[in-house]
Amino acid sequence: MAPIRNGALIFNEVPQRYPVPGKTTVYDDKRTIDLDNVPLNGSVLIKVLVLSVDPYMRGRMREPEVKSYSPPYTLGQPITGGAVGVILRSEHDDYKPGDHVLGLVNFEEYTIPSNLTFLKKITREPGLDWPVYLGAAGMPGRSAYFAWKKYAQAKKGDTVFVSGGAGPVGLMVIQLAKLDGMKVIASAGTDEKVQDCKDVGADVAFNYKHTELSEVLEKDGPWHVFWDNVGGGVFDAALPYAALHARVIVCGMISTYNEDPEEGVRLKNLRMILVKSLHIHGFFVSDLSTPELEEEFYSTIPKKLASGELKHREDITKGLENAGTALEDVQRGRNFGKKVVLVAEE
Amino acid sequence: MAPIRNGALIFNEVPQRYPVPGKTTVYDDKRTIDLDNVPLNGSVLIKVLVLSVDPYMRGRMREPEVKSYSPPYTLGQPITGGAVGVILRSEHDDYKPGDHVLGLVNFEEYTIPSNLTFLKKITREPGLDWPVYLGAAGMPGRSAYFAWKKYAQAKKGDTVFVSGGAGPVGLMVIQLAKLDGMKVIASAGTDEKVQDCKDVGADVAFNYKHTELSEVLEKDGPWHVFWDNVGGGVFDAALPYAALHARVIVCGMISTYNEDPEEGVRLKNLRMILVKSLHIHGFFVSDLSTPELEEEFYSTIPKKLASGELKHREDITKGLENAGTALEDVQRGRNFGKKVVLVAEE
Repeated sequence: MAPIRNGALIFNEVPQRYPVPGKTTVYDDKRTIDLDNVPLNGSVLIKVLVLSVDPYMRGRMREPEVKSYSPPYTLGQPITGGAVGVILRSEHDDYKPGDHVLGLVNFEEYTIPSNLTFLKKITREPGLDWPVYLGAAGMPGRSAYFAWKKYAQAKKGDTVFVSGGAGPVGLMVIQLAKLDGMKVIASAGTDEKVQDCKDVGADVAFNYKHTELSEVLEKDGPWHVFWDNVGGGVFDAALPYAALHARVIVCGMISTYNEDPEEGVRLKNLRMILVKSLHIHGFFVSDLSTPELEEEFYSTIPKKLASGELKHREDITKGLENAGTALEDVQRGRNFGKKVVLVAEE
Repeated sequence: MAPIRNGALIFNEVPQRYPVPGKTTVYDDKRTIDLDNVPLNGSVLIKVLVLSVDPYMRGRMREPEVKSYSPPYTLGQPITGGAVGVILRSEHDDYKPGDHVLGLVNFEEYTIPSNLTFLKKITREPGLDWPVYLGAAGMPGRSAYFAWKKYAQAKKGDTVFVSGGAGPVGLMVIQLAKLDGMKVIASAGTDEKVQDCKDVGADVAFNYKHTELSEVLEKDGPWHVFWDNVGGGVFDAALPYAALHARVIVCGMISTYNEDPEEGVRLKNLRMILVKSLHIHGFFVSDLSTPELEEEFYSTIPKKLASGELKHREDITKGLENAGTALEDVQRGRNFGKKVVLVAEE
């Protein structure tokens, strides 16, 4: 077969604030691949079906000399991220054509991972589409599940406050907390997202653009667990409403990713760490992952999602050429639930 | 016997910033007590020997409507704090005249605690003076010991950074870390205090007024444990030098106690909680106290202090009439080691 197009989303420029589609990233439709003859060097050839767009990716769009937990994207190269794909060819015993895999790959239509460590075979639960495997049944779901189990010390009747409740992590945290018998307060930035939080069980949900957080927490607090996806001002404003010995699980700081770090954030309530004897935990999902937890997660959560016992929401952008916009949307909070890019049908 | 003077340090005015002797507190030498006939109502009459002056006391000098972990001082009444005293009379079976006690009492020469819960009989280790029982062998020492055991996850060869290294807690933390085989970096605000840190074993100690913290930590970091007595700018500046999964033990925030809380502190490095997967713990010593830990502490630490295996330093203000100045000194960091007020000889 002759070479065909292998479009890719290229990292083109380090953004100053929000990523700009066509500038920060550009879609290159001139690249080609010969599916039959491209050398695999012991790896596999994957047809990418769905790509994951996540808040943390902003942190990788940086100058290479800035150190951080995840490696920076390389200018002129495709960005990378989570994906579900199907194996077309394989030179590795663990994979055969037709297998579905979850992994970290280039944002391109066809890809050959140089490292198979981040690849995992998956089987689709009847009733669940592949996008769910990048959301509630994927990295965001695992983030929620692992850190909740490890740090929440969930207790029936206790209260959790979830900031950014309508993102894929937030929606899962709300549900895990309800399963543990907790009262859930959730914040979000639009009325539709507030409804999303309520739909999955939040007892109290509010639009932080119209309602003061302090007002809600004064009435419905104190919180015993604060799951923070937002950081910055929300982090600060929530601290005075902590119960003694409460836990803060810092999962994300979306409010700060697109700001100038030199600006910083003015915090007034840091003394609450002392006053309330708080425990604050940052984490990466990869650090909390153990074979036991992975097994526990994958053997239970996809089934509950498929049966409807747990709810999920995906927000699908069609076509890799639109992935740059999807990246910006997630940074600006324009997504509803899990944002994915549908690259190809099977 | 006729009534005699019972001088007291009265809480007179809520300070705006630093407490002002003679204004925030006033010494009242007009109060009297009839030692033989004052009714005890089931309590004990204590002659106060030494009083403890601690950073946290600033937090109690507030308007009563402001909530915090320790109750506010009452205007017009003596302030309260840690003390060592000797029992003169007793109506309680646990205490007899001549017993020495450690407790929370009024800042007055003779005192009758309304609540004996906070009283504990102590026996002096030969070679240790009573002031030590308010410092290295008292609340600051126990703070260091309990929280170090609970949160440090000390590992031989790892590094700890102690801010405010020359205070009574800092000096003990430095020594506990060295006993655990760690490398110790300590900061302090004068060259003499830097020497104090070195004298108890700090591998690296520096005067933060002359040397950039970032310079020191760039060279001698990263830290695996950050014991913070200072808060504010130091807290922020230290965060980028954390090792992955490092622990922050927040013991105090002396840099902020005398500032306007509405001002807040501008933090630039809060994202390190995520980037470095940090664990931050605030604590009160009373919460960490268990009978086992108390027993472990009192059966070992005073002996080590008496033998010289552990070092300690006290800074003694003579006379209750000077306690107001001692309070200000501690807030301004003018003390060397543990500040106490010597009220009376036995």
